[in-house]
Amino acid sequence: MSLKIGVIKGDGIGPEIVTEAMKVLDKTGEVFGFSCDYEQLLLGGASIDVHGVPLTDETIEKAKQCEAVLMGSIGGDAKTSPWYQLEPSKRPEAGLLAIRKALNLFANLRPAVLYEELKGACPLKEEITEGGFDLMIMRELTGGLYFGQRKTVEVDGVVTAIDELTYNENEIRRIAKRGFDIARKRRKKVTSVDKANVLDSSRLWRKVVEEVARDYPDVTLEHMLVDNCAMQLVRDPKQFDVVLTENMFGDILSDEASMVTGSIGMLASASLNETKFGLYEPSGGSAPDIAGKNIANPIATILSAAMMLRFSFDRDAEADAIEQAVTQVLKDGYRTGDIMSEGKQQVSTSEMGDLICERI
Amino acid sequence: MSLKIGVIKGDGIGPEIVTEAMKVLDKTGEVFGFSCDYEQLLLGGASIDVHGVPLTDETIEKAKQCEAVLMGSIGGDAKTSPWYQLEPSKRPEAGLLAIRKALNLFANLRPAVLYEELKGACPLKEEITEGGFDLMIMRELTGGLYFGQRKTVEVDGVVTAIDELTYNENEIRRIAKRGFDIARKRRKKVTSVDKANVLDSSRLWRKVVEEVARDYPDVTLEHMLVDNCAMQLVRDPKQFDVVLTENMFGDILSDEASMVTGSIGMLASASLNETKFGLYEPSGGSAPDIAGKNIANPIATILSAAMMLRFSFDRDAEADAIEQAVTQVLKDGYRTGDIMSEGKQQVSTSEMGDLICERI
Ligand SMILES: CC(C)[C@H](C(=O)O)[C@@H](O)C(=O)O
Ligand SMILES: CC(C)[C@H](C(=O)O)[C@@H](O)C(=O)O
Repeated sequence: MSLKIGVIKGDGIGPEIVTEAMKVLDKTGEVFGFSCDYEQLLLGGASIDVHGVPLTDETIEKAKQCEAVLMGSIGGDAKTSPWYQLEPSKRPEAGLLAIRKALNLFANLRPAVLYEELKGACPLKEEITEGGFDLMIMRELTGGLYFGQRKTVEVDGVVTAIDELTYNENEIRRIAKRGFDIARKRRKKVTSVDKANVLDSSRLWRKVVEEVARDYPDVTLEHMLVDNCAMQLVRDPKQFDVVLTENMFGDILSDEASMVTGSIGMLASASLNETKFGLYEPSGGSAPDIAGKNIANPIATILSAAMMLRFSFDRDAEADAIEQAVTQVLKDGYRTGDIMSEGKQQVSTSEMGDLICERI
Repeated sequence: MSLKIGVIKGDGIGPEIVTEAMKVLDKTGEVFGFSCDYEQLLLGGASIDVHGVPLTDETIEKAKQCEAVLMGSIGGDAKTSPWYQLEPSKRPEAGLLAIRKALNLFANLRPAVLYEELKGACPLKEEITEGGFDLMIMRELTGGLYFGQRKTVEVDGVVTAIDELTYNENEIRRIAKRGFDIARKRRKKVTSVDKANVLDSSRLWRKVVEEVARDYPDVTLEHMLVDNCAMQLVRDPKQFDVVLTENMFGDILSDEASMVTGSIGMLASASLNETKFGLYEPSGGSAPDIAGKNIANPIATILSAAMMLRFSFDRDAEADAIEQAVTQVLKDGYRTGDIMSEGKQQVSTSEMGDLICERI
């Protein structure tokens, strides 16, 4: 049996970390009896270099032919890269936003997990994180300020810029359902985050989330204002299971949560549409400063491949095997530079990939 | 000489903490030779109880007659208080937003300081906070999503909500100038936070901030994306001096920063207009659960009174005296419940006020 997987190596460390994830997928396939049919796709800076634009129709069409897409990272150093001489709508990140919309990837899942083995890297005191934490940010990814109308106009000689934050009830309902579905498989708690004391869109958000909640009597719903949530993630991350929120709040809170774990190089993400299709990528960026040096941490990308097997291919056993291999490699004391600590064995990007393969 | 000060005691713990701040102001006046002429003003829940609305023209007019306003806190428990049966535009918080706009308080200063004496309460590991940190969030307070057009409409049976994020160049310029002015008196660094890879308003923000920066060659400017800033506040708060940002990002980041200190009960804030006038309030909320128990921490309000003397009355020596008295009281081992730790002496709200007065 062959899995049709689109591969966007992307920019910066992207190619290196994706290569390791493919290695791990292939090894998993050998053990469990499947093979992967990879289709290389261009996006972001890599697409600008070849086609002059960050996303082409060809990439969209080819991605649609795949069952899932595995991605590295998009973008370069805004200060030095020629990509950033282009106007905003032609830069690498614009390609990422456009492919999310084109493929209707409205549900962005970002787990933030504290690994027992990496507690040393967590910025929070031990008394706060004792016993670990494991939360999932469920971010709406195709609406809100990211995709509303925007314009910059001059009125009476004064330049004014306007961005619209728009949500309709259907957009809110489908992400809320996904959030509750996921919570049901976890610790059965949803924290819906909004700014309902200020925004109309947040008041609609709250109302629709409450309607959806009625179909999930087994899941506890709580509402939290976004400013409070930004505090609570630092004060007591253990209180959260699934954090359900709109696009911009999710962007901010998921990055905050990832830093609270202290090991962003370990964090996967999935962006799903209404079907089984999804795009899987590490939470971290393209890290152009360390690109090509074989020192980046490939684990987030490898765990994204595991998420892909789980969500797009219903291959839970295979996903478990990868996750366990990652945990084992940490227990065995191997670390890339970003998560290195005293007494551990520092390894390269490709060595880390090999070590994980050996444990599958 | 008499200072004309408006006083909004507000809701929850507001009356208790403001009473202590007034006590400290009066004591400071005795020592330095001024008196305070207080004008009581109603806002929020307290105004709803009397007038049925959270802000009256009378409060606005009276506030304008004052040189500065000292405030406690606004709002109650949204789950149980009858104020929250009202529609959003009539709730306590709407009064707070409306008075900011009516008095043109566009510059919100929120210091986040780690007190050496309270390091135990900081959620971050000691290695991150060693030597302490002291940053100032400069939040634009009368524009953006908070005050743009908003509407909820039904189109073809689908309810849609829209909030507009609007900034014009003048609004950005005046807050940027304030940010650079403040940075000049501090460590001469401004971190301007936006989401310029997505929003038109952020691109305008960045452009205008860069223009303003040219007049401050002695101040270093750096740009940071809001998601990255949410990470950096946890990873390394020491890197920041002045964080300059728009209204909603500032709401989120200032609360995150206040929690990173671990002692929100210690944090003051100022909201200023183009003149010397300002509204001063603690960063924390109205804490209805502990209202009326004489256990709330009055220090944030007392430090807000110090900020008032500094910014609205140019009384630096007086402000210094209050700040030093607060530091001394901590050194002497006195704590309210929220900042209590082993071996310290727990005191009530009013005792804390007295202890600070004694040290002025
Ligand atoms: C690159 C950027 C446009 C993007 C976003 O804001 O969504 C990134 O921060 C992310 O979270 O995937
Ligand atoms: C009460 C609320 C409307 C307010 C805000 O969002 O500005 C508060 O969170 C604050 O930061 O002062």
